[in-house]
Amino acid sequence: MFLNVNQHNENVTDLANAKVGESVSVSGMIHNVRVTKWGGFIVLRKSRGLLQAVVSNETSKFFDEAGNEIAMNDLCREMAITLTGTVNEAKIKDPAAFYNTIEIAVAEVRVLSRPTTAEVVDMNALKFGDEETLLRYKFDNRQVTLRNPRDMAILKVQSTIARAFGEFLSANGFTQIFTPKIVSEGAEGGANVFKMDYFGKQVYLAQSPQFYKQIGVGVYERVFEIAPAYRAEKHATSRHLNEYISLDVEMGFIKGQEDVMILEAALLRHIIAVVERDCAHELQLLNAVNPVLPEQVPAWKLSEVHEILFENNLCEADHRGEDDLAPEEERAICKYAFEKYGSDFVFVTHFPSEHRAFYAMDDPEDPSLTLSFDLLMRGLEITSGGQRMHKEADYREKMIRRGMNPDAFHFYLDTFKNGMPPHGGFAIGLERITACFLGIANVKECSMFPRDINRVAP
Amino acid sequence: MFLNVNQHNENVTDLANAKVGESVSVSGMIHNVRVTKWGGFIVLRKSRGLLQAVVSNETSKFFDEAGNEIAMNDLCREMAITLTGTVNEAKIKDPAAFYNTIEIAVAEVRVLSRPTTAEVVDMNALKFGDEETLLRYKFDNRQVTLRNPRDMAILKVQSTIARAFGEFLSANGFTQIFTPKIVSEGAEGGANVFKMDYFGKQVYLAQSPQFYKQIGVGVYERVFEIAPAYRAEKHATSRHLNEYISLDVEMGFIKGQEDVMILEAALLRHIIAVVERDCAHELQLLNAVNPVLPEQVPAWKLSEVHEILFENNLCEADHRGEDDLAPEEERAICKYAFEKYGSDFVFVTHFPSEHRAFYAMDDPEDPSLTLSFDLLMRGLEITSGGQRMHKEADYREKMIRRGMNPDAFHFYLDTFKNGMPPHGGFAIGLERITACFLGIANVKECSMFPRDINRVAP
Repeated sequence: MFLNVNQHNENVTDLANAKVGESVSVSGMIHNVRVTKWGGFIVLRKSRGLLQAVVSNETSKFFDEAGNEIAMNDLCREMAITLTGTVNEAKIKDPAAFYNTIEIAVAEVRVLSRPTTAEVVDMNALKFGDEETLLRYKFDNRQVTLRNPRDMAILKVQSTIARAFGEFLSANGFTQIFTPKIVSEGAEGGANVFKMDYFGKQVYLAQSPQFYKQIGVGVYERVFEIAPAYRAEKHATSRHLNEYISLDVEMGFIKGQEDVMILEAALLRHIIAVVERDCAHELQLLNAVNPVLPEQVPAWKLSEVHEILFENNLCEADHRGEDDLAPEEERAICKYAFEKYGSDFVFVTHFPSEHRAFYAMDDPEDPSLTLSFDLLMRGLEITSGGQRMHKEADYREKMIRRGMNPDAFHFYLDTFKNGMPPHGGFAIGLERITACFLGIANVKECSMFPRDINRVAP
Repeated sequence: MFLNVNQHNENVTDLANAKVGESVSVSGMIHNVRVTKWGGFIVLRKSRGLLQAVVSNETSKFFDEAGNEIAMNDLCREMAITLTGTVNEAKIKDPAAFYNTIEIAVAEVRVLSRPTTAEVVDMNALKFGDEETLLRYKFDNRQVTLRNPRDMAILKVQSTIARAFGEFLSANGFTQIFTPKIVSEGAEGGANVFKMDYFGKQVYLAQSPQFYKQIGVGVYERVFEIAPAYRAEKHATSRHLNEYISLDVEMGFIKGQEDVMILEAALLRHIIAVVERDCAHELQLLNAVNPVLPEQVPAWKLSEVHEILFENNLCEADHRGEDDLAPEEERAICKYAFEKYGSDFVFVTHFPSEHRAFYAMDDPEDPSLTLSFDLLMRGLEITSGGQRMHKEADYREKMIRRGMNPDAFHFYLDTFKNGMPPHGGFAIGLERITACFLGIANVKECSMFPRDINRVAP
């Protein structure tokens, strides 16, 4: 037997080119059924949202899996069906309707398969008294509650952000790399690593691809990765996940950390434009306002941020002299940047060396500071980045100063020993940036199957 | 301070638009230096391969990191430099030269950074007496040996295959999903799962995203994922990795497994075309012949394959009646398909139920067989796929028949209880398909940092 590859174009579920008056065949899940005296409505769920179909008692026919005629009353939610009919103009008000300018006048419905419970979850009724109960219910039944159009929309935007990220970087000379998540040494230090037995050896789940993406710069000049990262953090907050998708970038031959920041700003402008173009429906359904990143992005030193907020009396406390950003400062400086400069984004630079990872490059003008940055978006940190050291001696010196054992990092140090260009990079948490784009309070809603201290299933 | 995003276009490392006679500035690593009486050559390593620069004793100048003039003799391999000069026409024969029609007449070289060992690995001299010693050396020093143009080319093709995979599926209505790798229940059964402690619970590293991608079909109709997968296999062969990148696809509303196979064939034709277009240099360097997937792809039942090979006397043994493909059959049927039908690919279908995963759909015409397939490429299996069951009762029945406890899979079964369309999918091992594209014997060479029973570093 031979398969004819040209048959591939056949896609019964595609309505993209449907014209008014045309006869179409479309498959999907029944999201809702409403029976009226004259017939009623079938709301079909498609990959992007809902499609309305109108049933007439006089002309519409229904068939079960075996081809036997059934009544409209025999249809139920979450049946998989193929529906044929005529495309009509319509004005659908339901914001979950992806197809809001057409509806289908049903000629025929064929049931392909059906649920085996009479108590299918009503995706439209996912409302509870309090947010916490709702979220718990949603996560406990994620295998089905993901079919809720709102959740579908969140993860569609997430998917689009990841795609735009890869597209932009591929077009800008970056090579996508795939680095191991089973590692022999943690990159970010600290106790929050998951340990595992690997054929009798103790290994870790990678907290970040930091070492590997730096190595990648010595190979491909510019690299990126889209992959899970692991943090064994014991606290359960709305901002943390124990497993998240890290969008990682590292670029060589930079003149300074500004090159990295400009690259990230240009990348984010591309992502914003793609989300605007490809997710208009999802933004509307979620009442989300796509963020703005102007051509001139605010980029202030940590000390300047303290100063600006104090001078303009924008914080309750006086944070001048503090060695990190207080949460109220994150919110206040973002509000300030938006109101004064129309930017949903603020770079904050020159964090104290002792608060940054060991691989950060110290500022030659003031070695107590680093050439590193955070990017704040709408009050939250979505990125850490900066220039890295590229000399072996600098690494050894800083490691010893911090009480680290250079021998444990010999393969990493060997990279610098064999020559490395000046370089820097950053990482964006995919779930967190999705939450910031969409104004979602709990980052777990931006993970398909969130993992936290209490949750490893579904 | 404000960053001007429009500065992004500035890319000193880009030579794409360089014209003969033009003055250019280009950064890279020194791959080799050859001093002659009249000057010599600097071979610069760029992200895609080598670039030749010609030095003249009379006009070329060299400066160290501090801006002091140095001699050409002071240059060494793996220095990061910025080189300015004039583009000249040239005919470079080194197959590792990505820029093989131009060379640069050096005006000035500025050293940006340098290695701190006098014994930098010679990337051109990565040749040893026997293949095994060479491979061990390469993997032990992967942080540096990746800079070998041949290894760079392998992973560049890998990266291109992954990009083409995502591009095609995104353009065909598939949504990219990100599913957890920390799971409470293995999807593929068997003992080869890595176990881990997760805040006091025993969890596993996902062998595949099988359950989650099926759930994704109930949400988005069509989904794909590019992510690591884990197999705790204790044997160390040239075909296996303990951590690999799985290219996963799952699609709903199929009429049969042929829909899945046609989709995969069309996808592979796209990947082949993109590799042809974007990796011509890498294919040539690796002496690789891009595979051929004709419009009519051979697709034979397992029993037919046994029959064809026996009738044509193509195997040493008579395999008729056997319930799997023997390795000699994999090789023989691929050779047959290539010679007779010009195809580097062969689908083999209808494997016995007892040899396939429990979620495979049994063939209604012969329930001892499944509607599942393997895709062979050049003698190796690169894909398993097929139609899945979509009825809760079928899952329960098969699980019980196999001695599995349905309660352990309650969230998975709940998906089918709540309705699922007919669906199917497949997975491609990224490292393995890369090896098959390039004719690389050991799949570990197609992993940036391979993990096997003996290796978790670098």
